[in-house]
Amino acid sequence: MQDALAFLKQQIRTVPDWPEPGVQFRDITPLLSNPRAFRVLIDQFVHRYFDQQPTAVAGLDARGFIIGSVLAYELNIGFVPIRKKGKLPFTTVEETYELEYGNATVEMHTDAVKTGDRVVLIDDLIATGGTMMAGKRLLERLGATVIEGAAIVDLPELGGSKRLRDSGLPLFTLVDFEGH
Amino acid sequence: MQDALAFLKQQIRTVPDWPEPGVQFRDITPLLSNPRAFRVLIDQFVHRYFDQQPTAVAGLDARGFIIGSVLAYELNIGFVPIRKKGKLPFTTVEETYELEYGNATVEMHTDAVKTGDRVVLIDDLIATGGTMMAGKRLLERLGATVIEGAAIVDLPELGGSKRLRDSGLPLFTLVDFEGH
Repeated sequence: MQDALAFLKQQIRTVPDWPEPGVQFRDITPLLSNPRAFRVLIDQFVHRYFDQQPTAVAGLDARGFIIGSVLAYELNIGFVPIRKKGKLPFTTVEETYELEYGNATVEMHTDAVKTGDRVVLIDDLIATGGTMMAGKRLLERLGATVIEGAAIVDLPELGGSKRLRDSGLPLFTLVDFEGH
Repeated sequence: MQDALAFLKQQIRTVPDWPEPGVQFRDITPLLSNPRAFRVLIDQFVHRYFDQQPTAVAGLDARGFIIGSVLAYELNIGFVPIRKKGKLPFTTVEETYELEYGNATVEMHTDAVKTGDRVVLIDDLIATGGTMMAGKRLLERLGATVIEGAAIVDLPELGGSKRLRDSGLPLFTLVDFEGH
């Protein structure tokens, strides 16, 4: 069998000029709909965290839910959704971060994690890193330790993965793409 | 061990007056964050579909992603996201349905399923059934058969599950709650 990461990278579809002109969008949906690719994808994360004793997986809304929930199930730990503002019904903590134009806010339930939890924070892709940094702050405000940030795709030219590592967050990503 | 469904129902949190006064919101997040409950929850669906040879699981944005992706992984089949309009980058089909005030549109990639696919369509909760009905239409427009609609919670007083069954869609839900 060919290298797993090369196989996975081949399944990611580049959609030009979406959501706006000049952006090459890296679309993971073909990875999900192909049973072999989906299995190989998830197992990269399962193998990575098998021995690290995380106590929860936190997934970023909404593509982070798709990989994070499977990882949590396979590791027999809980899954915690971090959502865009206004989607969670119970008491929440929130963090606002800057986007290219304007800003965005993410929330987590206050009882989602507790002091001493060791959390894997997961999304599909790291671009500017703003969402993942906000997620890390939410988890830390509730007393948890983020043992690693994880994603399928890194876009290193956007600087997000460097900023996250510089902040002290270890990262685990499977494939890089050039450009935006 | 106590009955699995009674155990699961106990983990669902009712948040009064959310998102608006008079609504009792059934919050599944405690089910997800408790490792035993999450495992027992997912396994209800795994056991249900183990012998039915589905070829894909379609999850409704966004809580349907959390259970649907694990089910697909466990069955060694692909996962297909059905998303709110504007979130999917490739060519899509869309369906619009009525809400209490206004309407909503969901989309699916045109290559997400193909003729002959046998799909389990999943969400966390069935209220009016509008989203699930729209998802069924999308899948059928692309030639797939929806073998069953699945959800954790049914709110039978809202009439959605009856409407879905009357339309010819078999349903599998784990727990009922009274009221809205």
